[in-house]
Amino acid sequence: MGKKELIEVARGDKEPDLVLHGKILSVFTGDIIEGDIAIFGDKIAGIGEYSCKNKLVVEGYILPGFMDAHMHLESTLMTPVEFAKAIIPHGTTSVFIDPHEIANVTGIEGINYIYEASRNSPLDFYLTVPSCVPAIKGFETYGAKITAKDIASLLNSEGVVGLAEVMNFPGVIYGDEEILNKIKVAGNKVVDGHAPGLSGNQLNAYLSAGVLSDHECITADEALEKVNRGMKVMLREGSVAKNLLELIKAVNEKNSDNFMLASDDLLPIDIQHGHINYRIKLCVDRGIAPDIAVKMATLNTARYFGLTTPENKKGAVAPGYIADIVVVDNLKSFNVQTVIKNGRVVFDEDGTGNLYLDSNKVKEIPSSLKNSVKLPNFDLSDIEIEANTKDSMEKVRVIELVKDQILTRKVEMKLPVKGGKIQTDVEEDVAKVIVVDRHNKGKHIGVGFVKGFGLRKGAVASSVSHDSHNVICVGVKDLDIFSAVKRIEELQGGFVVVNNGEVIAELPLPVAGLMSDKSFKEVEKGLRNVYNGAKRLGITVEHPFTSLSFLALPVIPELKITDLGLVDVTQMKFVDLWV
Amino acid sequence: MGKKELIEVARGDKEPDLVLHGKILSVFTGDIIEGDIAIFGDKIAGIGEYSCKNKLVVEGYILPGFMDAHMHLESTLMTPVEFAKAIIPHGTTSVFIDPHEIANVTGIEGINYIYEASRNSPLDFYLTVPSCVPAIKGFETYGAKITAKDIASLLNSEGVVGLAEVMNFPGVIYGDEEILNKIKVAGNKVVDGHAPGLSGNQLNAYLSAGVLSDHECITADEALEKVNRGMKVMLREGSVAKNLLELIKAVNEKNSDNFMLASDDLLPIDIQHGHINYRIKLCVDRGIAPDIAVKMATLNTARYFGLTTPENKKGAVAPGYIADIVVVDNLKSFNVQTVIKNGRVVFDEDGTGNLYLDSNKVKEIPSSLKNSVKLPNFDLSDIEIEANTKDSMEKVRVIELVKDQILTRKVEMKLPVKGGKIQTDVEEDVAKVIVVDRHNKGKHIGVGFVKGFGLRKGAVASSVSHDSHNVICVGVKDLDIFSAVKRIEELQGGFVVVNNGEVIAELPLPVAGLMSDKSFKEVEKGLRNVYNGAKRLGITVEHPFTSLSFLALPVIPELKITDLGLVDVTQMKFVDLWV
Repeated sequence: MGKKELIEVARGDKEPDLVLHGKILSVFTGDIIEGDIAIFGDKIAGIGEYSCKNKLVVEGYILPGFMDAHMHLESTLMTPVEFAKAIIPHGTTSVFIDPHEIANVTGIEGINYIYEASRNSPLDFYLTVPSCVPAIKGFETYGAKITAKDIASLLNSEGVVGLAEVMNFPGVIYGDEEILNKIKVAGNKVVDGHAPGLSGNQLNAYLSAGVLSDHECITADEALEKVNRGMKVMLREGSVAKNLLELIKAVNEKNSDNFMLASDDLLPIDIQHGHINYRIKLCVDRGIAPDIAVKMATLNTARYFGLTTPENKKGAVAPGYIADIVVVDNLKSFNVQTVIKNGRVVFDEDGTGNLYLDSNKVKEIPSSLKNSVKLPNFDLSDIEIEANTKDSMEKVRVIELVKDQILTRKVEMKLPVKGGKIQTDVEEDVAKVIVVDRHNKGKHIGVGFVKGFGLRKGAVASSVSHDSHNVICVGVKDLDIFSAVKRIEELQGGFVVVNNGEVIAELPLPVAGLMSDKSFKEVEKGLRNVYNGAKRLGITVEHPFTSLSFLALPVIPELKITDLGLVDVTQMKFVDLWV
Repeated sequence: MGKKELIEVARGDKEPDLVLHGKILSVFTGDIIEGDIAIFGDKIAGIGEYSCKNKLVVEGYILPGFMDAHMHLESTLMTPVEFAKAIIPHGTTSVFIDPHEIANVTGIEGINYIYEASRNSPLDFYLTVPSCVPAIKGFETYGAKITAKDIASLLNSEGVVGLAEVMNFPGVIYGDEEILNKIKVAGNKVVDGHAPGLSGNQLNAYLSAGVLSDHECITADEALEKVNRGMKVMLREGSVAKNLLELIKAVNEKNSDNFMLASDDLLPIDIQHGHINYRIKLCVDRGIAPDIAVKMATLNTARYFGLTTPENKKGAVAPGYIADIVVVDNLKSFNVQTVIKNGRVVFDEDGTGNLYLDSNKVKEIPSSLKNSVKLPNFDLSDIEIEANTKDSMEKVRVIELVKDQILTRKVEMKLPVKGGKIQTDVEEDVAKVIVVDRHNKGKHIGVGFVKGFGLRKGAVASSVSHDSHNVICVGVKDLDIFSAVKRIEELQGGFVVVNNGEVIAELPLPVAGLMSDKSFKEVEKGLRNVYNGAKRLGITVEHPFTSLSFLALPVIPELKITDLGLVDVTQMKFVDLWV
């Protein structure tokens, strides 16, 4: 498919492979242009009048393929190709992923797996290289380390577009050599940011280091301050962190080229509502012009990531652009009718689409990734908590969940003592939480208490716990906790619900203990199953495994727990359980 | 000036080199933000509140340094550093130049000279590599050839941002291998276009080849068609080709990110009115919001040329950006008060600015460039035109000038015959025009007639004649023509005005016969001098040497003359003088 032939098609002297006719939205001007799109090979040759045997006339609106500017694939619990199959019917044709989770567990090997497994996919996966692995040192056992040298080497691969979110913003602001080196090796590629609440001179410092974007804004004012300092702001709407409806207040026609849409973390049970198309709809519902909303999900993202050169340009329906095209029913609902990827129909609502997936080429999951949960030997006595006094009640520090937030409160509570051991208290909604080193570094087990899950019996465990992904479990009785963790080890990763020593629901996640090797439908069903299981134990939080996974993240205030113990994040130090 | 120190300054823990306080225009949102800009080294560290001994408080508005998105330095008749001195006081801090003229005369050597001579300059010269040298084959004697291989090698140098305007658009549209190869080697850099009047499928073909921009639009509709096809459009306002006032009708808040400002060809006598600042003012006069006008001359241009990475970003006043800053009196007149380049004050209206120019480092002009006008031996008999008949009048083809256009008309006229030779006819405003090969390729002299200069006596000659820059001369009497061309040879290039065999005005242009080696003031004065000289001969056209220089361009309709003869451009063939 030479350039010469493409030009021949464009000028009308050669038949296109496919002509799509309909109402084309120009993301350059907002104009709607009724006409033919001539497609040849993987490119758009021209817009105008073209004749072709293979002509598809559509009633709906023709838009560029949608892009998710920032997401962690691991949160979808799916391998790349399964995710692609799930998401393409919603019109997403490119995603910019940060394999931060798998990198934290398995290092370069995990990144390479994601990279290679995503090459044979009808969806374009662009990689950003994790910048903060491990996320933090000295407060937990971590699985891997990605150095500036590793990053430099990874950045050489095609489709690797930059450095992933620089979460260590205090390090940047206070001139930490290691993180500054990582930014330096990114050279002239993109450097994604992560700057929750950063403002004023601290924001200046973060930006002068070279960071280009942020997806952690919460208020419109915060977004506008960042935009006025030159930052590109991603309007995040994830399964848990939902910021779009507030941030959209910052967007107008004049400044809209500074914004993109992103999901960050997306649970498979949310994909039924749509993906980026749903987020575009939310923008339009709030009064944003449809072309502006679409542009934030296409051209702006492509421009930010440098997909603007003669050879790689995408994000618009225009001559010379990659033929990633979506047909939607109208500019209000954004229901996807047809998706064209690299010039081929990969989805059609009537079922004629074809993902053109060569199953023989699907990357096999390396066995090392399937054997990543290496727990120490431990028994019940290791998770019991001795009382310090002879009283019937003992005062301890308890982690309290905050609804819809990943931050927690540190509270002090009196818990019952029985047989010299401190007990959980169902009436006060206090359960036990343990974190067990899964990186084979020693017998590290953190034990504490957590309030707010609504758990009345049994235990739930997970091998997903940010960012080091040690095994975490919350339960009422030690035996159930022990059984749940052991089951995670047997499965080599997953979500497990146990009651009375019996597994009542489970979703195996054998790929680095983070992702399933099953299809989207199976994963979605499996996740609903463990949600229901958790509900049967009394759990009231909306996303129990997500809430669980953030209990071990010692960079988010106030009180967290790792395999090394309780961490008071406000003071950045370990604290005793006993007050 | 390490990154670490810059960050320290940004967060307020180290004193900046300079703090500029005033009303800062955000090109991201259009907001005006009153505050301090902390500058350290060549970068902006932060915006907010900063203390510094070296604090400059201004009343005016603070804008990013202006950019000219496309220009031919040679048209200014100045060497890079002299041009920089002329233009910086008008707030221009970056120009994107296409050394097409010098490349046509001297090939790679000329490009290298411009490149090296522009390195030691307070103005940033970004180079695009000429794509069409020679402009055309078979119709004139040309001086050099730039191959795809040459282009690939030139593109490797720092500050070389892409391929210059692809003027051979018919070649692109019809799949000419050579020009497609040149586009291919541009790889992921910018490919500038040149697409006068191109529309519909021909435009599609040109774009599908990978061309990204155009600066030849004449109407707003043409500009909008191109923008809707994904093209970036430069609003050109040159000394002769003035398109901005018409094209500005196409610009609105929604689509403005597709537009840039450019001068293309700028005569030194026009610089007194301003440069890009004057073009911004024109936009604002026509109702464009000041921030949009400024953005078209700064951020949009930087983005188009890829100046968006952590290390090279410019085009805005924001942390981490190169400190190229302009202070203007207000957002209506755009009179420049102060210019900061790479963090240093290089111009201030009170005279305290300093160009920081190390004269020792000014690139010497290579002697080969100073000896580039190599004419054949010829005498008066070579420029006489024999009559074909014995009549007292003979019918010949005459080139007719069209006011304010570079295209000409082909007309047929009867001219007087004396002594067997065809004569000029002052009453009918018909003079003789000759073009002499200056590339030492043989005794090639084209002789013809031209109507419309207003010349009543004497002759004017020039070594600037697009695109091969053979020596061209228009005159009433052969002796004056001969003298003028001989004087050009003695000067090794220039503009010359002769009457009665005497040179009455001249501007030497010894650098490749295209540029002066003198200062801006001297060049400006010299040009006025030859304009006045031309006027004394009766010349009525506004820019006599510009009009002269386009008579030899055999790609612009209808009738042109080269050293090889008269060319009927509408049929793309040589034609006889005699009808």
